Amino acid sequence: MYFSHTALESQESPIRKFHPYAVRAKAAGKTVYHLNIGQPDIETPPAYLDALHHFDEQVLSYAPSPGIPMLIDAIRDYYSGIGVPLNAEDVLITTGGSEALALVMACILNEGDEIITPEPYYTNYATFALQRGAVIRPIKSSPEEGYHYAEKEKLEQALTDKTRAILLTNPGNPCGTVLTRAEMDMIADFVRTHDLWLIADEVYREFVYDGEELTSFGQLSGLEDRLILIDSVSKRFSACGARIGCIISKNKELIAHALKFCQARLSVATIDQVLAAELYRSTTQEYFETVRKEYQKRRDIVMKKLKEIPGVVCECPNGAFYIMAKLPVDDAGKFLVFLLEEFEDHGETVMFAPGRGFYATPGMGVSEIRIAYVLKEADLARAMDLLALGIEAYNKK
Amino acid sequence: MYFSHTALESQESPIRKFHPYAVRAKAAGKTVYHLNIGQPDIETPPAYLDALHHFDEQVLSYAPSPGIPMLIDAIRDYYSGIGVPLNAEDVLITTGGSEALALVMACILNEGDEIITPEPYYTNYATFALQRGAVIRPIKSSPEEGYHYAEKEKLEQALTDKTRAILLTNPGNPCGTVLTRAEMDMIADFVRTHDLWLIADEVYREFVYDGEELTSFGQLSGLEDRLILIDSVSKRFSACGARIGCIISKNKELIAHALKFCQARLSVATIDQVLAAELYRSTTQEYFETVRKEYQKRRDIVMKKLKEIPGVVCECPNGAFYIMAKLPVDDAGKFLVFLLEEFEDHGETVMFAPGRGFYATPGMGVSEIRIAYVLKEADLARAMDLLALGIEAYNKK
Repeated sequence: MYFSHTALESQESPIRKFHPYAVRAKAAGKTVYHLNIGQPDIETPPAYLDALHHFDEQVLSYAPSPGIPMLIDAIRDYYSGIGVPLNAEDVLITTGGSEALALVMACILNEGDEIITPEPYYTNYATFALQRGAVIRPIKSSPEEGYHYAEKEKLEQALTDKTRAILLTNPGNPCGTVLTRAEMDMIADFVRTHDLWLIADEVYREFVYDGEELTSFGQLSGLEDRLILIDSVSKRFSACGARIGCIISKNKELIAHALKFCQARLSVATIDQVLAAELYRSTTQEYFETVRKEYQKRRDIVMKKLKEIPGVVCECPNGAFYIMAKLPVDDAGKFLVFLLEEFEDHGETVMFAPGRGFYATPGMGVSEIRIAYVLKEADLARAMDLLALGIEAYNKK
Repeated sequence: MYFSHTALESQESPIRKFHPYAVRAKAAGKTVYHLNIGQPDIETPPAYLDALHHFDEQVLSYAPSPGIPMLIDAIRDYYSGIGVPLNAEDVLITTGGSEALALVMACILNEGDEIITPEPYYTNYATFALQRGAVIRPIKSSPEEGYHYAEKEKLEQALTDKTRAILLTNPGNPCGTVLTRAEMDMIADFVRTHDLWLIADEVYREFVYDGEELTSFGQLSGLEDRLILIDSVSKRFSACGARIGCIISKNKELIAHALKFCQARLSVATIDQVLAAELYRSTTQEYFETVRKEYQKRRDIVMKKLKEIPGVVCECPNGAFYIMAKLPVDDAGKFLVFLLEEFEDHGETVMFAPGRGFYATPGMGVSEIRIAYVLKEADLARAMDLLALGIEAYNKK
């Protein structure tokens, strides 16, 4: 049968393609510590269950295409609290940050267009771009430089006459990099100078450590025409399964185009919008503070353990809940298969995301891995010990 | 700023663009009877609230990308009950039938490709096709022929060497047309002969009247390679706000490609999948029978009232909950604006969907309207009387 180029060229998720190996390892009786997927174990604030248990509509009907006003208002209140005043018409509710990204790319990309994004990057950016016939132009970075990418020269190297946007995750996934205010200003200048869109995926906004300030590109002035924020409740409230995100922009034309696509898919799930509104309205600063402290402790354990493994290259990141590191192995994908199929210590092993999937540039990231520190302290410590033992066993083979 | 051709060429929803007129009419104190949107007033089976009120996960986490096994199994049981045995891997859960359609089109359409679909058609088909750079080729039909489209000659007229698929809604939206078994066989032959995909959007499957048999293209043999079913809980269980649909196909390559796109958007809302599973598992045949009787009564009222209006052209459809009719007015869009802005009877008026939005062919559907009979009997009768009074007043102007 006939298939589209997009379908034929799309890759299987590089994170999820190792899933069958994990299934087999578990079937064989092994315990697998999962550092491979960004699914936090942190409890969703219980307000979400309250909202759910009080939901009482006799007819579960369509929500308005742009989103339920109560949720839009709750998001506006949240943004107002971080110094980003929004009007109701600046916000479109989407089915997760994923749909927000896909809709934005549908609005601003034609076949052959290019998006600049720091590499390594969130893998699905490439899939969404490919769906528009567009291409990712990477801003290079390396483990040796602590995956630092925000330099004007690096941005200029990626720029062509087909560049339409800079897309970045801040705090970053998979590297945990957090931009300084000076770096944000440089990027803002760059998109103004070169007349580009700036798509800022800020879904990890709350996850900054070591007293780092919580920021948003929405706080910068002079970007109104070209800034598109991507946001989500998934990480903020540990509510990944709600699939509630949003597009935020002051560019009315962008919102008008995106709204047409929102109308075509009718609406976002009604119940999830109601519970997301409740999460925004009822979650306190104390909750965020507690979660932040918990993640910082976890990051510190992972970093301490990484530093103890000979040959690992890694700088301490200060955001999100990921660490990217270069291991002393020839191929992180092969090493992962080894961990799942051959290695064990007292019946236990560990799983991470191989780095190659986060790179567009061929040959890059082969020895790198992404660690998601979404387990409790004791489990994390054990997982990291298993990683160290695994590296030793793998290199002795 | 720079926008995509897709964004610039996409139309505002032709159904929803009259919404501001309705808002103004209501602000001016008028009661508006809504026959314009397919949002049923029928109660969602209460099992959905039970499922919701018993949901108790401490972490609202991602569901698997292909869908929650419990829901997939519930759907398989439902299909088994209508003589369509499915394997778990034949089903991908999607965010409504809308995402199912968009994903399928992403899998099988390249720029410049064509899809054949009966005209008038569900408007968003054109938006999803446009998002792939593809084009709708209409199979012509007319109110005078009762919008009958399933003739081999008509299909052949729409065929070109760029045709990749036939896409049809059965029972139909906006016309309520239900295919006979002989017509289904003819279409199956046609797609086999011309090596096309057959995308059968069967979300209104339960809504057939006058003793019509409940059918699915899945019941026909010899279509395994090329049949893609689009389904949803929205209409079946009056649960439009759940946004739970699915793609069903025995073509493993299609499912594999669609799954890559499913992985890119991570998952479908967890809670909605759980409640949809409960709806499938607990809803009885009696529920469907009761709902069917209720809609049949409503259809009969609308038809009776339509027949009483001089100059209306309309055949009685036997499926879905829509009737398409040609009115004795010069322009149904202008007439709708008149109803909302100028007309009233005892402070009341009526709203429908103008027909033009359901046509690709320029100049078609100008005097036609779609009526969604989703109101209670008494309200429907009053709405139809208002329509008759409105036509009289409009033509006297």
